[in-house]
Amino acid sequence: MKKTLNLVKIGGNIIDDETKLNQFLEDFAQIPGLKILVHGGGKTATEMSSNLGLETTMVNGLRITDAETLRVVTMVYGGLINKTIVAKLQAQECNAIGFTGADANLIPASKRAAGKYDFGYAGDIIPGVIRGEKIAFFLDNGLVPVFAPLTHDKAGSLLNTNADTIASALAIALSEQYETRLYYCFEKNGVLSDMKDEDSVMEELTLEKYRAIKHEGLISKGMLPKLDNAFKALLAGVSSVVICHAEEIGNVLVHHKKTGTELKNNS
Amino acid sequence: MKKTLNLVKIGGNIIDDETKLNQFLEDFAQIPGLKILVHGGGKTATEMSSNLGLETTMVNGLRITDAETLRVVTMVYGGLINKTIVAKLQAQECNAIGFTGADANLIPASKRAAGKYDFGYAGDIIPGVIRGEKIAFFLDNGLVPVFAPLTHDKAGSLLNTNADTIASALAIALSEQYETRLYYCFEKNGVLSDMKDEDSVMEELTLEKYRAIKHEGLISKGMLPKLDNAFKALLAGVSSVVICHAEEIGNVLVHHKKTGTELKNNS
Repeated sequence: MKKTLNLVKIGGNIIDDETKLNQFLEDFAQIPGLKILVHGGGKTATEMSSNLGLETTMVNGLRITDAETLRVVTMVYGGLINKTIVAKLQAQECNAIGFTGADANLIPASKRAAGKYDFGYAGDIIPGVIRGEKIAFFLDNGLVPVFAPLTHDKAGSLLNTNADTIASALAIALSEQYETRLYYCFEKNGVLSDMKDEDSVMEELTLEKYRAIKHEGLISKGMLPKLDNAFKALLAGVSSVVICHAEEIGNVLVHHKKTGTELKNNS
Repeated sequence: MKKTLNLVKIGGNIIDDETKLNQFLEDFAQIPGLKILVHGGGKTATEMSSNLGLETTMVNGLRITDAETLRVVTMVYGGLINKTIVAKLQAQECNAIGFTGADANLIPASKRAAGKYDFGYAGDIIPGVIRGEKIAFFLDNGLVPVFAPLTHDKAGSLLNTNADTIASALAIALSEQYETRLYYCFEKNGVLSDMKDEDSVMEELTLEKYRAIKHEGLISKGMLPKLDNAFKALLAGVSSVVICHAEEIGNVLVHHKKTGTELKNNS
């Protein structure tokens, strides 16, 4: 029987709030067994760019990463956020180890080709390229990997990469070794059936239903890439995918309470 | 028989010069066998502080690290410099993995108590506290650790720590497992017998002679902590310590040429 691995993605809005982040990390540290944390970027990179006199350009919610912006996200994601989280987890007796995709060549990627827009140093993970056994090596030796949203091109450059995508790609790669459960944690209670009602959380969302409501425009723009990545993971062998509030991670993974939205492959 | 481990410390002035850094990393990647790189900070942290409107205060060559400055060095040392080096080494088929002392709790330290000056978030490594076998675990699995000059207090905070000290402490901790050779690489050819003559490199420097010339004030201020750390390592079981030019690392460790200053325990 495969061991269980809990892979948790934490979004930017929680990272921006120190009190919420501390509570989340305290809860995360309590989760028993094998676990991985993937963190997003938050507003710090944009603030830092602005403080340094750089303009931030976003297209469809994606950051245009020119050479100067790459320096900023490498500092903020790979240094400030990643290492601060690692130090805080270590204080909770959680043996965290911080990674970008360049470390130990864990997540090689390719620079996105310029199309209508040139996203610059943005990385797309090549399907099948993450070798799960390389990450299993750390997990099986009692370490808790913490991933920043950065990959690399294996030619000397880091690449800015969406954290939801990294979480999904890691979960897929590790589902060979483990019964892998993926949790997308953010500042909402789950997938809402009514975008205007925060309490209208769907307990379940099937792929069939997702396709229908996506088509009708009933899913908020910010949720689309998260859900696309989440279903991709589910279809590629990840055991379960749950989208829930960051405050609930302790309830879900320590106290086994059901909360948030569970995605379902069947109808 | 113990395996040989080469531990190389690279100073800030090389890091500040991209061409020199690239050449150094190309050479470092060619060194056969087990190896570790420890890097300093360079001027980027001071520049970044200045760009962010923070004042940098140095006392006797040491940076006063208040909370805001800690954020800057965490970004610059732990993110920008460390991850850029890792990505560049990966491009050279060197399986680098970037660390601060917080990662996997590799280098716990204590916050320096305020005396005449309060250095803020400055970390002193507690003698004997680094567990060499934890770092050996990575080395023995084909990885090349790259350390940023940051430690942590195990209570949730990172600490700014001198890179020469980290290199010395790591070499001492690993000398139980390996025949450990320590190389301090910087922008000079070695220890000079005449501070004004760059070519007056001493081939050897014994502890006895060091004590004498130190007493006479014949060692430059910047060299003192490097040499103190270097002799400390030699006295604590490190096999050899060499201080040499960063440009010579390939000659020394790939082509076995003798260069720089070798420190000697005896007279």
